[in-house]
Amino acid sequence: MTPVCAKIGGRSDIMKNRSSEDAIKIIESIAKMKARIRKYKEKNLSIALVPTMGYLHKGHLSLIEKAKANTEVVVVSIFVNPTQFGENEDYGVYPRDLERDRKLSEEAGADYIFNPSVEEIYPRGYNTYVEVEKLTEKLCGKSRPGHFRGVTTIVNKLFNIIEPDRAYFGLKDAQQVLVIMKMVEDLNMNTEIIPCPIVREEDGLAMSSRNVYLSKKERSISLVLSKSLFEAKDKVNAGERNLAKIVARIKANIDNESEITIDYVKAVNMINLENATTLENKVLIALAVKIGKVRLIDNIILEGN
Amino acid sequence: MTPVCAKIGGRSDIMKNRSSEDAIKIIESIAKMKARIRKYKEKNLSIALVPTMGYLHKGHLSLIEKAKANTEVVVVSIFVNPTQFGENEDYGVYPRDLERDRKLSEEAGADYIFNPSVEEIYPRGYNTYVEVEKLTEKLCGKSRPGHFRGVTTIVNKLFNIIEPDRAYFGLKDAQQVLVIMKMVEDLNMNTEIIPCPIVREEDGLAMSSRNVYLSKKERSISLVLSKSLFEAKDKVNAGERNLAKIVARIKANIDNESEITIDYVKAVNMINLENATTLENKVLIALAVKIGKVRLIDNIILEGN
Repeated sequence: MTPVCAKIGGRSDIMKNRSSEDAIKIIESIAKMKARIRKYKEKNLSIALVPTMGYLHKGHLSLIEKAKANTEVVVVSIFVNPTQFGENEDYGVYPRDLERDRKLSEEAGADYIFNPSVEEIYPRGYNTYVEVEKLTEKLCGKSRPGHFRGVTTIVNKLFNIIEPDRAYFGLKDAQQVLVIMKMVEDLNMNTEIIPCPIVREEDGLAMSSRNVYLSKKERSISLVLSKSLFEAKDKVNAGERNLAKIVARIKANIDNESEITIDYVKAVNMINLENATTLENKVLIALAVKIGKVRLIDNIILEGN
Repeated sequence: MTPVCAKIGGRSDIMKNRSSEDAIKIIESIAKMKARIRKYKEKNLSIALVPTMGYLHKGHLSLIEKAKANTEVVVVSIFVNPTQFGENEDYGVYPRDLERDRKLSEEAGADYIFNPSVEEIYPRGYNTYVEVEKLTEKLCGKSRPGHFRGVTTIVNKLFNIIEPDRAYFGLKDAQQVLVIMKMVEDLNMNTEIIPCPIVREEDGLAMSSRNVYLSKKERSISLVLSKSLFEAKDKVNAGERNLAKIVARIKANIDNESEITIDYVKAVNMINLENATTLENKVLIALAVKIGKVRLIDNIILEGN
């Protein structure tokens, strides 16, 4: 897996030629979305999808900008997918603001927002699920049973509705990216997955729609996550090769903060998410924690020799 | 669900304009198949898929002929799919004869045979499955755990590889047709499923690749299946409305043959395969039996008032 998402210069170029005619269109119906897609397909235009749960941040916008730079038609899907939330998770309170998302998506260059209702996506009697085994048993899959089945099912559906040539995903959810790439490969789907680098706040915190839930104190404490990961990278760059030591050090850093509960901190290889013991090929140092009620994840990719 | 597959006149018309240039092409690689499909898609040509496990009989050929009459490019897939066979089932001895299938498919008007190896479809590390719940717990799903997961997974893959506008299925596997229609609906896939009527031998036995395994005696005994179903239909036409009585009568007929073991005989509605008690809407009388080592299924659709 090679992250091919380059840095984006900004949105001024994209917006220059944008007239009011080009205003972003919001589509709620699957049939209408398919009909639009059909027309573009008949003209052999390329289509990109940026799947999101809305409440967009700069990470999402970088995906949209990258999509627009490489594709003729860009669809942003906004759907808070109930099937990927556990019973005691934050589906009900997940932040939503379509008008804000509309403006941001339009500025970033998207042509469509696909914003279906839950009933449109999962009508009464809905019964079909897509499941990637093995990969989904690791990391977040362990602590969130059913989560990835929800993810692969909704992404499969979105790919069938939008038929994107390319779909853009942020590497903050590195496991999600790997699981979706595996689904696409195994099911012979016709969409190229473009994994894009994590976008961070200036102080290092990985962008997440859930960051709005952090209290001021929690927001400040949360910096230990990115700092510990950066420190790990610095150590590797300085010659450290002992992954167990690196992971232990990250855990110790985080454990210093009593408000944080660690779900996991792991060094795994980027192919099958099995524990990595040496720095061959790409190693993912991934972590998940709870700060108060907020579950946060972050990671860093270490390049082996 | 409306079976829209009309009677086919024969293959003489189809073959008239067929030159040697039009000889059927056999493709074994997914990448090559996708590349061909891509070219047809760019020209906006319509594509039909007839998914089979090979060893074609007149039932399959009627699907191919119907596909050819309605579509520009017809692909017949031939793949004995291991994941839909149980451990003690007949995967190893399922009849195979590609040269015979090639001739028959070509005569029926197919343009391509897609004939991948098991390794091509399920490479090392394959881990993704598509599952339709509920519907698959009934009838054959009950006695063949995992069977329909294998079916929906392979059909999903074939639909992604061939991207057919239409796919043709025989109604002998009525539950399979319903399960696949449910998958297509739930996952918003872009293929129309065309269910086609059962094709029977002159004496009534439903065509099946497995019929070749019947001994002469078993072949003769097997007629009780279709005869019982026809008798049921006659009774309904004559005014009988008691489905329980109809089912009991079929069971009794079959039980008369000591060489046959009944798996199930059921009257179910054609929507969710729940037991049907009255003749409202469409009722499926479906049965599965074992004659010696050979598992046979058959069914008849009764139209309610």
